[in-house]
Amino acid sequence: MNPRPTAAESTDGRLVRWDEHKLQRRAHIIESAIAEVRETGPGASVTQIAKRAGLTRASVYRMFDSPERMYREIGRTITAQYLADFGAAIAAELPTIEMMAAAIHHYVEFCVNEPELYRFLSRMWTDYDERSVALPAHQTMAKIMVAAFGSRPEFAPIDGLEELAYGSIALMESAVARWVREPVDTREDRASLERRLTRWIDALRHSEATTASRSSSRTS
Amino acid sequence: MNPRPTAAESTDGRLVRWDEHKLQRRAHIIESAIAEVRETGPGASVTQIAKRAGLTRASVYRMFDSPERMYREIGRTITAQYLADFGAAIAAELPTIEMMAAAIHHYVEFCVNEPELYRFLSRMWTDYDERSVALPAHQTMAKIMVAAFGSRPEFAPIDGLEELAYGSIALMESAVARWVREPVDTREDRASLERRLTRWIDALRHSEATTASRSSSRTS
Repeated sequence: MNPRPTAAESTDGRLVRWDEHKLQRRAHIIESAIAEVRETGPGASVTQIAKRAGLTRASVYRMFDSPERMYREIGRTITAQYLADFGAAIAAELPTIEMMAAAIHHYVEFCVNEPELYRFLSRMWTDYDERSVALPAHQTMAKIMVAAFGSRPEFAPIDGLEELAYGSIALMESAVARWVREPVDTREDRASLERRLTRWIDALRHSEATTASRSSSRTS
Repeated sequence: MNPRPTAAESTDGRLVRWDEHKLQRRAHIIESAIAEVRETGPGASVTQIAKRAGLTRASVYRMFDSPERMYREIGRTITAQYLADFGAAIAAELPTIEMMAAAIHHYVEFCVNEPELYRFLSRMWTDYDERSVALPAHQTMAKIMVAAFGSRPEFAPIDGLEELAYGSIALMESAVARWVREPVDTREDRASLERRLTRWIDALRHSEATTASRSSSRTS
């Protein structure tokens, strides 16, 4: 993706050191930004982020083409960390329904434990702008689901596995977004939210499996 | 909501005429804006809207506190028109599954026949800002569904009818948003998209009905 030589490929020692330095500084800024968002919320400013990173605003700007790019990079980094865990949860050797429950539990866990990072991502995820991280994040989640479920025999006859994956993600996201916004003392308890979501996603899957087996028995 | 006297309440004849004039002008601007969005897309500018309304930019600004307010008013008007039709579709005297199919058909019809208005609303609907029309629109759709389904005997035992309504809307929205973005010549045909959505929403409903009857037989 990056047309510039990477540290390993470059033969110029000074360039290698400069690239390494730049990469480290960018990573440091992103890390500081995540810490800042975690503490002060998704509205964390460049000034606050620079201060936490121990840098001037100017040197933060120098590292990124624009503040939007920096915020997208922050979103991508949080998403990547979240997705790695999500992938691990969903790839576990569990019966299908338990695997679904684990993935849902993992998602709700993130929203509860990292409320500000979740709010930061939600804003990006619900922004359907092509440049946003929304589509890549959903695509990756859907791909993880397709890979994890696709290898299981009960999913083999399902034609629209990708649609099913996207539908399940939308269902989970919207239900959790609503739940998070409700007052803590009157909302449904967390365990019952997770059970309901597991039941729903399982119902979707069964509706597809039934159709697939019905139409395959019709054609064979 | 509006602290100023309405035309009917006011006793000052000139004020009545001025209010009426203002309301008419606002309605004319909103109508022109919708025509402009329909033609040039969700990015239609105040200048374009003013031109189509045969007014100066200044007089358009005078009618609304800010451009954001005007765009929200446009969104609310399109949404209200859409919801009136949605309500009619869903209130029809049809068996439940056919009623669901009719509501889904109606939604897809709007996206296909009014692609630019749909894009305009999608941007607002996916913006989780509290001031946006997203929440009111979804709330109204969910309320219409709850009212239409809640009176039917098969829904009586369902506890989380509201959650079910919101879940169904999220599922429909996300699947249609994905479908609309796909290339016309390779995407699933419209009838099969609608059938799949009907099947999914019916599966969700059945999963709730089963749980409800199971837990009520457990407690009785």
